[in-house]
Amino acid sequence: MKVDGKDMRPIWFDLTSKTVQVIDQRALPHKLIIKNLNTVDDTIYAIKEMVVRGAPLIGATGAFGVYISLVQKDNKGADNEYLVSECKRLKNARPTAMNLFWGVDRVLSAALQHEPYEKRVKAALDEALAITEEEAINCRKIGEYGMPIIEGISRKKNGEPVNILTHCNAGWLACIEYGTATAPIYTAFDNNINVHVWVDETRPLNQGSRLTAWELGKYGVNHTIITDNAGGHIMQHGMVDLVIVGTDRTTRAGDAANKIGTYLKALAAKDNDIPFYVALPSSTFDWDITDGIADIPIEERDPDEIRYVQGLFNGKIEKMLVPPLDSNAANHAFDVTPARLITGFITEKGVCRANQQDIMSLFPDKKK
Amino acid sequence: MKVDGKDMRPIWFDLTSKTVQVIDQRALPHKLIIKNLNTVDDTIYAIKEMVVRGAPLIGATGAFGVYISLVQKDNKGADNEYLVSECKRLKNARPTAMNLFWGVDRVLSAALQHEPYEKRVKAALDEALAITEEEAINCRKIGEYGMPIIEGISRKKNGEPVNILTHCNAGWLACIEYGTATAPIYTAFDNNINVHVWVDETRPLNQGSRLTAWELGKYGVNHTIITDNAGGHIMQHGMVDLVIVGTDRTTRAGDAANKIGTYLKALAAKDNDIPFYVALPSSTFDWDITDGIADIPIEERDPDEIRYVQGLFNGKIEKMLVPPLDSNAANHAFDVTPARLITGFITEKGVCRANQQDIMSLFPDKKK
Repeated sequence: MKVDGKDMRPIWFDLTSKTVQVIDQRALPHKLIIKNLNTVDDTIYAIKEMVVRGAPLIGATGAFGVYISLVQKDNKGADNEYLVSECKRLKNARPTAMNLFWGVDRVLSAALQHEPYEKRVKAALDEALAITEEEAINCRKIGEYGMPIIEGISRKKNGEPVNILTHCNAGWLACIEYGTATAPIYTAFDNNINVHVWVDETRPLNQGSRLTAWELGKYGVNHTIITDNAGGHIMQHGMVDLVIVGTDRTTRAGDAANKIGTYLKALAAKDNDIPFYVALPSSTFDWDITDGIADIPIEERDPDEIRYVQGLFNGKIEKMLVPPLDSNAANHAFDVTPARLITGFITEKGVCRANQQDIMSLFPDKKK
Repeated sequence: MKVDGKDMRPIWFDLTSKTVQVIDQRALPHKLIIKNLNTVDDTIYAIKEMVVRGAPLIGATGAFGVYISLVQKDNKGADNEYLVSECKRLKNARPTAMNLFWGVDRVLSAALQHEPYEKRVKAALDEALAITEEEAINCRKIGEYGMPIIEGISRKKNGEPVNILTHCNAGWLACIEYGTATAPIYTAFDNNINVHVWVDETRPLNQGSRLTAWELGKYGVNHTIITDNAGGHIMQHGMVDLVIVGTDRTTRAGDAANKIGTYLKALAAKDNDIPFYVALPSSTFDWDITDGIADIPIEERDPDEIRYVQGLFNGKIEKMLVPPLDSNAANHAFDVTPARLITGFITEKGVCRANQQDIMSLFPDKKK
């Protein structure tokens, strides 16, 4: 997507240096910093510490991670056992996003089909690049399938702005292009539909106010940052027409894990009869489970992410302490929105309602 | 309440200097700063800029403000017209908390009954002091009436910790002593009931993580700070037994305005069958209105409160920019929780269910 006139993605393979490069999303919106991923340790660090984040991007990073494990440290990845154990380490970097396991497994399985080593390296890189391109195309399709939902509301409102609330960042920074939740918004914007986005700041790491606001601003989309607390109030007062969020893992029955706080917005949308959509590529479905609350592992992260808020101070990115240092804090990173609160899913195969039967009708090869 | 062994209140009349003094709550938990309120401008600034905050404390500050308007600027308050216009300015300092109008009107009306000027000054100060003491007693009673709710859960859990979630600060810092939402918690704690408090950080001004955590910590109450996003998740997983919050204004039918985000917690409590109580002194009821969503004015504050987060950096209290500087932000300070989501009210007259009939049975003199 364009950033100040230049095409950017959050991850790419640099042909000159032959390295995987990523935007360090921790420094946005204040600094645009590029990092190289040279080793599996670099890659795991990038995933764990949220240099990269967002389910599809974590998947793509894991995919490149298999290539990186093949070529790192004097090509130790030539050894099968070593390669498989490095892939296992990659998959353990974060527990909730489905795409990580999916991306790593897919590239590993492609690589293992090739000998000798040089062919294997090429196969891994090709598969990681293919995943990246496929996810970009999937996001574009999510945009095309989702746009009519916004268009319909716009028609009913006679061209008045369609107010869309989103939580966290499920934009192109979380994906490759377009984003998932933001894809219908960008597509509507490109088609001259009048849209306005309410951006939840998304504590503790403020992916909404730091990343979604930055993305939308760079693209020229009208938006307003609100606290995570505000969504219910603005829904009560008719200021939200539609909610679209992403997801880190969704069960075959339609329970959707997403950034902590999503469930609260789904409850408010239900209470105020506002459509609540989840946008995702099929790589985010976990086809093996149905009950999201029981079966999706929820990551607990360092409580210091709550205690210390990062921002710009005197031109530098710094961290400041907010609460008393000796107070406990707990940092659950995701919650699960039950399917009963979700109006529908927007996928690369089309839109469906949030129940197993309708999901299976879009993805018939996943029927058990 | 005790702070490091010393009795403290958030507002008091200092007999030596004959000035009204307050804790500057903006600097907590990192610094304990005392401010003098010498003029009505000082008092309005303190209310507007949240040097003092919390419905009962805003009421008490407004009450002292009438005394201050009498004695400020070479006793200009001796003039009735001037006095009434200063009181009007005080009442306009913030729009949502009922207690402000109530406190100012009560002291003004007491003062106007006395002549000459010296008697009027004494009457105003006495009335403000009386309000302060009454609110302290009201909070103690709220604690006594609310404690059995916690005790009952504790018995059912065989003494395992009772997990109570609260939003914002409705503690002694928001009141005079004990607090409203925290009064049953402190009373239970004093009676050796095992309690643990989930403290919502309460964006944008973090009254939860800055003030409630500080208060509870100083009193020795076990607590854990969470983001405002987390309440739904921990309720889904059986980690919350009870929610108690304060309120800035509650209608005669039981709709309760409180810090933005309270409504989202009430929805989650309902969805998970968790009792949701609102604790308040009768001074917070607005007996003239029934429909809270339509009729309670919701203050919109400076969006910079969202953009800039305050914390401790290199030993100083500083503010840092989080989102892109050119992104819009909207800062609604309160929301309204409809009575249908509230299990009951805990007042100085007892506990009642959240409907007009039950509220009137506690306050029969307010029947129309």
